[in-house]
Amino acid sequence: MAELMENEVVRAFSTYAVIVVVKMLLMGPMTGYYRFTRGSFSNEEDVARKSAEEKKKLLKTHPDVERVRRCHQNDLENIIPFVIVGLLYALTGPELSVALLHFRIFAGARIFHTIAYIGALPQPSRALSWVVGMLVTFSMAYRVLNTVLFL
Amino acid sequence: MAELMENEVVRAFSTYAVIVVVKMLLMGPMTGYYRFTRGSFSNEEDVARKSAEEKKKLLKTHPDVERVRRCHQNDLENIIPFVIVGLLYALTGPELSVALLHFRIFAGARIFHTIAYIGALPQPSRALSWVVGMLVTFSMAYRVLNTVLFL
Amino acid sequence: MAELMENEVVRAFSTYAVIVVVKMLLMGPMTGYYRFTRGSFSNEEDVARKSAEEKKKLLKTHPDVERVRRCHQNDLENIIPFVIVGLLYALTGPELSVALLHFRIFAGARIFHTIAYIGALPQPSRALSWVVGMLVTFSMAYRVLNTVLFL
Repeated sequence: MAELMENEVVRAFSTYAVIVVVKMLLMGPMTGYYRFTRGSFSNEEDVARKSAEEKKKLLKTHPDVERVRRCHQNDLENIIPFVIVGLLYALTGPELSVALLHFRIFAGARIFHTIAYIGALPQPSRALSWVVGMLVTFSMAYRVLNTVLFL
Repeated sequence: MAELMENEVVRAFSTYAVIVVVKMLLMGPMTGYYRFTRGSFSNEEDVARKSAEEKKKLLKTHPDVERVRRCHQNDLENIIPFVIVGLLYALTGPELSVALLHFRIFAGARIFHTIAYIGALPQPSRALSWVVGMLVTFSMAYRVLNTVLFL
Repeated sequence: MAELMENEVVRAFSTYAVIVVVKMLLMGPMTGYYRFTRGSFSNEEDVARKSAEEKKKLLKTHPDVERVRRCHQNDLENIIPFVIVGLLYALTGPELSVALLHFRIFAGARIFHTIAYIGALPQPSRALSWVVGMLVTFSMAYRVLNTVLFL
């Protein structure tokens, strides 16, 4: 057990996996923050104490909330594949320096992606960070298939 | 191999991970059930045998279906991070009793979250169960980073 | 380390997990392709260089884009649970032939599911491939709980 976590590549993977997953998880509270400050909710019970008129207003979507939600969705679509493929990649025993390069580029790209998305930075900043993250995952996927292929 | 699954923390993790993932997976059939009973579909081919007039009616969204889908989405956003962080946490070799406490609280919180969401229970029941689940994942993430940090 | 990846069931799992996850990841670029060819975007900064009139048109949803997005969402809801449960399943040391049967059926069902969804094939082709994939995951979940149950 402890053996697995003594391996430096597995430790590096665990560190970066937790960082990007916690970043993704924080999009939840951020959505909540935007819902309260922008006054935009999805569920009747969330605005139960308001007057009928206010309710109608509060149950509409708000562009800022929808933006955070799209960013969160993009995280689910990209960070989870990274973690799955990355775990298998770490188990193939790659060079530590090469593995670290993959993990660091991915984490940096995804943190920048969130800044670009929430800040609505001019394109192609968001598109590029999305592509870079995906290329890292593809590179790890290639190594896994190349090492363990068993169909 | 068998070694890993002989460890009690890994076995406990596997048990609770499967329970919450199966719970999440069952939101799919539940969405299907609501789509049929409420008559609300998303795809033309799902209502191919109906008349043009009926089709138009059946291809509209229904609040009950949208509620189940939001609940499912919240599961994706919270249960998958729990499983990823929880696996790494289990591999750091925590005390069995402490690990069980994390897993049990999370599973309980998420099952209650589904009941609160689908049943539209008054707030803050849903919000609290969401926060409790997230705190469990944060606590495990802290332990992982504290044990294996390798940047 | 290498030990884990020397096991044939783990190697088979890794192969099929990477295949279905990469398939899921490719839904991202496919959404991008449909957004550009159908002219349907979600973010103002994605259409920054267009005239005000064009912007309004380009920021509307398009049924083809929404279809790809629903297919992607269905992948997230089904492929990720397969990978999580499948990893734990592989660690319980099942028969190689039985494990391969699970992995192959799942991968086949999900690839067909994407074809049925994007191609809008007549039902119940899409529904059946969805159910088959889910049954594979349930079967593996049953084996995991049956082998390692520790509540």
